[in-house]
Amino acid sequence: MMSKNNPGNYFEDFRLGQVLRHATPRTITAGDVALYTGLYGPRFAVQSSAEFASAIGFRGAPVDDLLVFHMVFGKTVPDVSLNAVANLGYAGGVFGAPVYTGDTVSTVSRVIGLKQNSNGKTGVVYVNSVGCNQHGEMVVDYNRWVMVRKNNPDAPAPDAIVPDLPATVDATSFRVPVGLDLTDYDGELAGSPHYWDDYAIGEKIDHVDGMTIEEAEHQIATRLYQNTAKVHFDQIAANQGRFGKRLIYGGHVMSLARALSFNGLGNAFKIVAINGGSHANPAFAGDTVFAWSEIIDKISLAGRDDVGALRVRLVAMRNHGATDFSLRDEAGKYDSAVLLDFDHTVLIPKRSLSVK
Amino acid sequence: MMSKNNPGNYFEDFRLGQVLRHATPRTITAGDVALYTGLYGPRFAVQSSAEFASAIGFRGAPVDDLLVFHMVFGKTVPDVSLNAVANLGYAGGVFGAPVYTGDTVSTVSRVIGLKQNSNGKTGVVYVNSVGCNQHGEMVVDYNRWVMVRKNNPDAPAPDAIVPDLPATVDATSFRVPVGLDLTDYDGELAGSPHYWDDYAIGEKIDHVDGMTIEEAEHQIATRLYQNTAKVHFDQIAANQGRFGKRLIYGGHVMSLARALSFNGLGNAFKIVAINGGSHANPAFAGDTVFAWSEIIDKISLAGRDDVGALRVRLVAMRNHGATDFSLRDEAGKYDSAVLLDFDHTVLIPKRSLSVK
Amino acid sequence: MMSKNNPGNYFEDFRLGQVLRHATPRTITAGDVALYTGLYGPRFAVQSSAEFASAIGFRGAPVDDLLVFHMVFGKTVPDVSLNAVANLGYAGGVFGAPVYTGDTVSTVSRVIGLKQNSNGKTGVVYVNSVGCNQHGEMVVDYNRWVMVRKNNPDAPAPDAIVPDLPATVDATSFRVPVGLDLTDYDGELAGSPHYWDDYAIGEKIDHVDGMTIEEAEHQIATRLYQNTAKVHFDQIAANQGRFGKRLIYGGHVMSLARALSFNGLGNAFKIVAINGGSHANPAFAGDTVFAWSEIIDKISLAGRDDVGALRVRLVAMRNHGATDFSLRDEAGKYDSAVLLDFDHTVLIPKRSLSVK
Repeated sequence: MMSKNNPGNYFEDFRLGQVLRHATPRTITAGDVALYTGLYGPRFAVQSSAEFASAIGFRGAPVDDLLVFHMVFGKTVPDVSLNAVANLGYAGGVFGAPVYTGDTVSTVSRVIGLKQNSNGKTGVVYVNSVGCNQHGEMVVDYNRWVMVRKNNPDAPAPDAIVPDLPATVDATSFRVPVGLDLTDYDGELAGSPHYWDDYAIGEKIDHVDGMTIEEAEHQIATRLYQNTAKVHFDQIAANQGRFGKRLIYGGHVMSLARALSFNGLGNAFKIVAINGGSHANPAFAGDTVFAWSEIIDKISLAGRDDVGALRVRLVAMRNHGATDFSLRDEAGKYDSAVLLDFDHTVLIPKRSLSVK
Repeated sequence: MMSKNNPGNYFEDFRLGQVLRHATPRTITAGDVALYTGLYGPRFAVQSSAEFASAIGFRGAPVDDLLVFHMVFGKTVPDVSLNAVANLGYAGGVFGAPVYTGDTVSTVSRVIGLKQNSNGKTGVVYVNSVGCNQHGEMVVDYNRWVMVRKNNPDAPAPDAIVPDLPATVDATSFRVPVGLDLTDYDGELAGSPHYWDDYAIGEKIDHVDGMTIEEAEHQIATRLYQNTAKVHFDQIAANQGRFGKRLIYGGHVMSLARALSFNGLGNAFKIVAINGGSHANPAFAGDTVFAWSEIIDKISLAGRDDVGALRVRLVAMRNHGATDFSLRDEAGKYDSAVLLDFDHTVLIPKRSLSVK
Repeated sequence: MMSKNNPGNYFEDFRLGQVLRHATPRTITAGDVALYTGLYGPRFAVQSSAEFASAIGFRGAPVDDLLVFHMVFGKTVPDVSLNAVANLGYAGGVFGAPVYTGDTVSTVSRVIGLKQNSNGKTGVVYVNSVGCNQHGEMVVDYNRWVMVRKNNPDAPAPDAIVPDLPATVDATSFRVPVGLDLTDYDGELAGSPHYWDDYAIGEKIDHVDGMTIEEAEHQIATRLYQNTAKVHFDQIAANQGRFGKRLIYGGHVMSLARALSFNGLGNAFKIVAINGGSHANPAFAGDTVFAWSEIIDKISLAGRDDVGALRVRLVAMRNHGATDFSLRDEAGKYDSAVLLDFDHTVLIPKRSLSVK
């Protein structure tokens, strides 16, 4: 009788165009949101206060965009990356309908590219993953590529197809929440005096604060997302591994950095796009995470004078304050203290509106 | 003036037939469920998705059976086992009405057996504990026996009464949820292709994954259940004890093992019975838990072709993968790596139904 | 371009009468309550059971008073104590309308006193902070004073104004919840046979149990309250500090002690006043917290024979059982094992009522 546990897919198991309908659908609740707050400490007023959110057109406090992202990402792990060597990157991510507590999110992925590595032992799998709510509305849609082991090195290489992924998400793809109206946006209550108008392209912001990560924290987070990647949980296996430690889910660092970014980007209340992202170095329990941002672009939104978008590079550092805005060395290699280089686009109120 | 803190009951304080109406009633919320997910990472679709659960006849996502069990168990501790030396076993446990978030569970126990040990210093107390929801419906009903210290060694021994507890719960006692209809059960979304028909008596399943336990995790869990047993929380007392460490609540290991069992038993969506259980060895923070299962019996349910039951021995191991299915040595003694031997019965869809 | 992160206020930035409208409003949910239960293990029946609470006149299980306090306190940190050296004390605190899950709490503070220290480098800031729900009803109103650094030592000292704060909150200020009626209060279900009548002024109670604190626990708690004080989270900064460790938010110890106080004060179901409080020594992860109480006063409430108030000194100890009720040495200095000296007033049923 064949073993009934899930072996995951190996590189040779993927087919171009293959559709993976992932288990487990997930109803997101006020409990998940509270745990997310406890794990990262985000302070964006829209996600924190139902009253604040309602005043600007949401029907309640929406669920943090990255919590939605992690819930969807977690579901792809058993089918896409159980046998992965590395999570290589993200591109072309957009957030759709706001998620409210009580919504149930389901995830489907499609294989959009395959390329065997020259060593014949691994290959890169490109997937487009889409999370939808119970009404079938898209809540997040993104592409990622991962390096996956082959089970049988002799399995033939597929035709190499590398998808043409966008370097940045175009403004026409941003989904501004239906009904959003920032006329009554209260920057004082939101905790920041800085609006779209106040940021300059090229400006760098030190988010100052540091957060030391504990094993219990990242394990609780990663289980909450029902992400089953073995490297995060099993110290016995880690003892045999390259680092001797449990690896922290990259999304955990992403959420920590996003929460830290409040201190300087407190009005950036919603992520609309993930242009790209790299986990530059692995993070471990005991690491202290700092973050800085660079404003890459300022984007006006057609027909809106109340809200604009900022394209932001958010960088997470390990055990090293963000005051010197370290990123890469002269050869272009990431500084060893860099954990995450996250290129995303956020919505933020315009001053024109706020000062009238 | 007498001390106002609770001294707990000693062996000589129990009387056969005594009814213990336990504090504290507990409203179970979406917050408890989220924390449970974060602590163990269960992925059973019925408990994870309100939509999935509704499609098969629940009125929402039911609360995980073991979370209900722990909530009820926790309430018995101040009255039953505050002065316990060891939690010896379980028998004859059944789950009743599904619990939904917002339900309030209250617990009453009855002393069903007493037997002083020959050393005269301790005795075994047998209790039947019943948790009921706010409508008075039974949600869980089980028996356990614990070894409890005497306060006064000279207190007379009661007549020895050892209750006749069943070795297994009979199928006629299983409570299949009212309205359950697996016609639309979606195994793909549930994450497992294996149905009742696919399991064989005697089959063993390695659940593969390992989870390392942190102090913060088991303490948060045990407090969530309002379980007050001192050994789980107080390192100063532990320093004087036999192990020098805080002991992990046995139910924590039970829930970890059940969550791990998803990888091989992903459609086993509901526990209907606890036939028996032993905490073979104590667990401590830093231990990595692995699990394996053995199918002990396959049970058809009268009048149902959509769902059957599997009697499963679920074994949790410490710091030792489950690949060799270790359990007992030649003398019948539990292997030192075995933490839990949990004999329970689960509901699982039948293929006859699912493939029509 | 000026840095966009929040520098916080320094001593010279405060003005007498200044009003600080704090970010971030916070909707308190069942998720927050569950996490609070998991972090501290409170067992007061009123907060634990919607059924129990409804039976005595609440419209559901109210949120734990100290959870409300921490949520409000956390919001004051970025404006009041980001540059604080020490949190010196509390006085004149009252709890108002019960908070239920779904309520949104906003916080406003007023500067009520200022006094520069003789060293010219720091000063004491006195603030009155008021948390209100979405209906504008006060939920908690308290005063605290903190020692805050000057940014510019040459900034002129303000006129010294030290407010006249009450040593104790007068019974006329207590807000007994509207509709409270303890006729059906069930002490057995609440877990304690001790009523107002049973306590004597001067009586001391050892709460017996000890709880060892983990880093993950206090960090999760403090982030849940959106308290941004850097000392709680950043080990890299702590390595340069006086203790070499992350400091635990004083409120975390307060909540642990309150939860432990159930064992001896199990019917003290609601805090109505904070008369005063001092964090006598800092707490660190690894410390085990014990607690004891002294009944300072017994207060009858006008027109009520179902409920009375007890003024209680609740003392939290570190790594030292509470059996000897340590507090101060002969010189009046706090014992080095004392973490918290918390003078508060609680409501508790009267026996006259309960036995009728």
